[in-house]
Amino acid sequence: MNQTIDTLLNHRSIRQFKNTKLTDEQLDYIIRSAQQASTSSYMMAYTIIGITDAEKKAALAEVSGQPYVKDNGHLLVFCADLHRQTHSATSEDYNQMVDNLENSEHFLVSAIDAALAAQNAAIAAESMGLGICYLGSLRNHLERVDELLALPTHVIPLFGMAIGEPAHQPERKPRLPKSAIYFENEYQPHDDAIQTFDDQIAEYYQSRSSNNRSDTWTDQMHRRFKKTMRMDVTDLVQKKGFNKR
Amino acid sequence: MNQTIDTLLNHRSIRQFKNTKLTDEQLDYIIRSAQQASTSSYMMAYTIIGITDAEKKAALAEVSGQPYVKDNGHLLVFCADLHRQTHSATSEDYNQMVDNLENSEHFLVSAIDAALAAQNAAIAAESMGLGICYLGSLRNHLERVDELLALPTHVIPLFGMAIGEPAHQPERKPRLPKSAIYFENEYQPHDDAIQTFDDQIAEYYQSRSSNNRSDTWTDQMHRRFKKTMRMDVTDLVQKKGFNKR
Repeated sequence: MNQTIDTLLNHRSIRQFKNTKLTDEQLDYIIRSAQQASTSSYMMAYTIIGITDAEKKAALAEVSGQPYVKDNGHLLVFCADLHRQTHSATSEDYNQMVDNLENSEHFLVSAIDAALAAQNAAIAAESMGLGICYLGSLRNHLERVDELLALPTHVIPLFGMAIGEPAHQPERKPRLPKSAIYFENEYQPHDDAIQTFDDQIAEYYQSRSSNNRSDTWTDQMHRRFKKTMRMDVTDLVQKKGFNKR
Repeated sequence: MNQTIDTLLNHRSIRQFKNTKLTDEQLDYIIRSAQQASTSSYMMAYTIIGITDAEKKAALAEVSGQPYVKDNGHLLVFCADLHRQTHSATSEDYNQMVDNLENSEHFLVSAIDAALAAQNAAIAAESMGLGICYLGSLRNHLERVDELLALPTHVIPLFGMAIGEPAHQPERKPRLPKSAIYFENEYQPHDDAIQTFDDQIAEYYQSRSSNNRSDTWTDQMHRRFKKTMRMDVTDLVQKKGFNKR
C-alpha cells in the first residue's frame, strides 16, 4: 500500500544489535516523532529517559535479565509522568488536584500517553532501518529502576525500549487471526479462531529456525498466568502516587 | 527524512470528517497494522470493536459528548482484553490464574498492548490520507459503553478512535519542548522549559485561527485537575476483574 504500512506490517522485535550508537539525527527524529503522538487532553503525561551511562545500563540489564538491554544502539525508558501537571501549583492548588491526579483514570491516561509516544518512537526507528524491542522486563524490579532514574513523585517507569542496528533477522511472529481480535458492534464468540491459531502456532514453534519446541498459544498463556509475577508493581505504583483510588 | 516520519510529525487530531465510509481495504490495512504492533509476552491483550450500527454510534456519541463520534468514516473502540488468556482453562487452571490476571501489572499490560495497537492503527490511517481522533471521552460513562459492546469479564473499553476523510485542516498543536520530556540518565529539573512552553502556548492560543483565548498550559492543567472527573472508572474496572490487587 505505502512505505509506512510496509514498515508497520514488517515489525519484528530485535534482540541482538550491532555495536553502533544511534546518531544524534536518528535520536532526534525518534524523540520528535514520539512527542507528536496524540495525548489525552493535552496532558503529555510521559517522560522518556535515554540511558548513556554504562553502569546504569548494566544495572537495568540486570533487572531485565536480558543482555540486549546493555548492548544496543540506544536505550530508552518510558515513564508515566503526572509530575509536570502540578508545576508551579500553590499548596492549595495541589491539595485540590491530588485526588484526581492519583485516581485510576489518570494512571490509565499516563500509561496510554506513554505507550502512544513509545509506539511512534518505535515506528520512527523502524522506518530508518533500525530495530527495536520493548522491555516490560524492567518491571521485574520497578523500585530499583525508579531509584536508578531518580524519578520524583507522580513519575514511574513503565517499560524500556532497546533500539539499534539489527544483528539478526528473526521471523515475523504470527498474530491471532483478525476474527479473534476484531468484532463488529459487540463482543463475539471466537473460541474457534483461537483453536485455529493454536494449531498454527504449534506448527510455527515446531518449524522455526531456532528455539523450536512443542507448544500452543493457549498453553503458553496458562503457564504464564499460573505463576504469579510482579505482584509488587502495585506497591511501587501507589507509593509514587498513582492508582490510589 | 522519509514518508513515515513525515506522517508521524504531521499528526493533528481531526474532529470533522467527510461523509465517506472507509473502504474494506482501508479498514483491513488499519486492523492488520494494529495487530502487528509489539505485545507484552505475546499476550495480544486487546480487542478492537468497529461500530457500524447507527444506534450504537449515536449512544456512544452521547456518552462522549462529541458529534464526530457519530459522523465519521468509521469508529473503533479499543478494549483491554485478558479474557482470551483463560480460553479452554479448567476451573482449576482458572483459579490458579486469576490472582495474576487481576493484578495491576496486567491492567497495565493490557492497557499498553491496546495503546500500541491503536497507535499503529492511527498511523496506518494517517499514512493513507485519513484523519483520526482518539476518544478518551468514552470513559465519561464507562459502564454504559461496556454494556453497549456486551463485553465479558476481563474485557473493558479504554478509548475510541474516530477515523475518516478530514473535513478541516487544524493547525499542528505545539508540544512541550524536548528539554521538558527527554532526559539523559535520570530525571532533570525542567521548570524553565515548562515556563518557556507556557509563554509559547499563550501566544498560540491568542493567534490561532479559531477558538482563540488567553491561557497557558499550566493553567489548563490546574483547572482540569481541580475538578474531579471519572472517579467511577475504578469501580467498573474492578468489577470487570482488572486492577484488583
